[in-house]
Amino acid sequence: MTWFTEKHTPNVGITFKIKQKIFSKKTKFQKIDVIETYEYGKMMLLDNCVMVTDRDEFIYHEMIAHVPLCINPNAKKVLIIGGGDGGAVREVLKHPSIKKVHLCEIDKDVTDIARKYFPTLSKSLNDPRVEIFYEDGLKFIKENNKYDVIMIDSTDPIGPAVNLFRKDFYERVYATLVEDGTAVAQTESPFYHKEIINKLYSDIKTIFPIVKMYTAFIPTYPSGMWSFAFCSKSFKPEDINLKEARLIEKDTKYYNANVHQAAFALPNFAKKLIT
Amino acid sequence: MTWFTEKHTPNVGITFKIKQKIFSKKTKFQKIDVIETYEYGKMMLLDNCVMVTDRDEFIYHEMIAHVPLCINPNAKKVLIIGGGDGGAVREVLKHPSIKKVHLCEIDKDVTDIARKYFPTLSKSLNDPRVEIFYEDGLKFIKENNKYDVIMIDSTDPIGPAVNLFRKDFYERVYATLVEDGTAVAQTESPFYHKEIINKLYSDIKTIFPIVKMYTAFIPTYPSGMWSFAFCSKSFKPEDINLKEARLIEKDTKYYNANVHQAAFALPNFAKKLIT
Repeated sequence: MTWFTEKHTPNVGITFKIKQKIFSKKTKFQKIDVIETYEYGKMMLLDNCVMVTDRDEFIYHEMIAHVPLCINPNAKKVLIIGGGDGGAVREVLKHPSIKKVHLCEIDKDVTDIARKYFPTLSKSLNDPRVEIFYEDGLKFIKENNKYDVIMIDSTDPIGPAVNLFRKDFYERVYATLVEDGTAVAQTESPFYHKEIINKLYSDIKTIFPIVKMYTAFIPTYPSGMWSFAFCSKSFKPEDINLKEARLIEKDTKYYNANVHQAAFALPNFAKKLIT
Repeated sequence: MTWFTEKHTPNVGITFKIKQKIFSKKTKFQKIDVIETYEYGKMMLLDNCVMVTDRDEFIYHEMIAHVPLCINPNAKKVLIIGGGDGGAVREVLKHPSIKKVHLCEIDKDVTDIARKYFPTLSKSLNDPRVEIFYEDGLKFIKENNKYDVIMIDSTDPIGPAVNLFRKDFYERVYATLVEDGTAVAQTESPFYHKEIINKLYSDIKTIFPIVKMYTAFIPTYPSGMWSFAFCSKSFKPEDINLKEARLIEKDTKYYNANVHQAAFALPNFAKKLIT
């Protein structure tokens, strides 16, 4: 009987009983493991941190994709930076308006492994509207290519994703968005990562006129409370298109129109971090 | 270096690095431990389950107390069943209308230990408006004593709290409430305790005309997603008294008027459990 433990801080962690170890590889960028657990099914670990699990990945992917896209139901072209597992792509393609999804993943192995071991995550990667670029997000986004929505589906701000927490990265995101464009980013746990959040939101607020935090319950992520930044040139979080949301919520397990609006209501301690 | 691990299911758990073990006792009802951890400060464990921690207890106690009391700012008399640590009492007494709080805790040791090791939790137990009864909640509530609000601040439905998840207990709660009375109860994790929640809400719905679930992020509880039942004879969750909420939210770290309303927006998978 073996257990896998992820330390969320040096002093607290989550521990999972393992059914079997499936795969392990050190890539150019990070260590990737696939394990099967009794409680959460298969998991992909990047540098010993849980990235996705069969059982709770739906929450993260629904919340990163549907919040910006139910606000702008006319979005045609989306860029996802990171997210090589395909979960965000799967959710984005549920929106009828989408014509093109660019996925920029630094590590081709993440995608290859997702295709092999996580078919429900990666199935949409073969959709003809999807084009995959195996590049560094910071470099990719310099090119002159405009998007309606950019999703920053990164790992933690250590290792290969460190560039995606830089101010100049967000300046480029802004420049790469259309006039009414929106970016969303995963922004760690308001309970454990106060300094990262404080710094990041301060930076983003100097770039985007509208910056709001929203949260979701993600049981396998540190503290179970996860945050996302909604960064917008013109749309506000409450500009939800109810027709689009009603369509989408028929095929989700977490997201719905009420959850969309409620996710922006922050507990006092979280509000403090970003004001 | 020692770690304390609580299994949330047989296959997943949370683990804390311990600074020191402070206290341990087997009472008539349960095993009580007090440990000091690096991440969450002091913790009280009942039968090896985390009940309260210095660092995140505010969330549970604010959310169990202020949701019903900001809906009825004229509530004068409150009964708390369980909650011998005093955290819910502390929050209840923030409401200016409160004249009387009855605390019915089955295990006097919980209260004694809270007084000794958790002063920020237990400090309000000496308030002259508070009267403590060391009795079984099911038996206590038979008496003919009417309350504006009843809070069921129980442990999990094993051990001494098993009675507090019975249908006939809720029938007595209903009978013990005034005409526009409200009860709230902690109702476990929608992610892990689906059967318990399904059964409990089915039962309560046959008794109270208005039954809604609301949730809060509690990092040290199973899955980090915790639920509460709002059971009411006439008030609805959205009947929030904004003046009362604005007063209370000046002195909270989690609760505020927006969080109050947002907490009732349930993800699809949680809605399914109670419909």
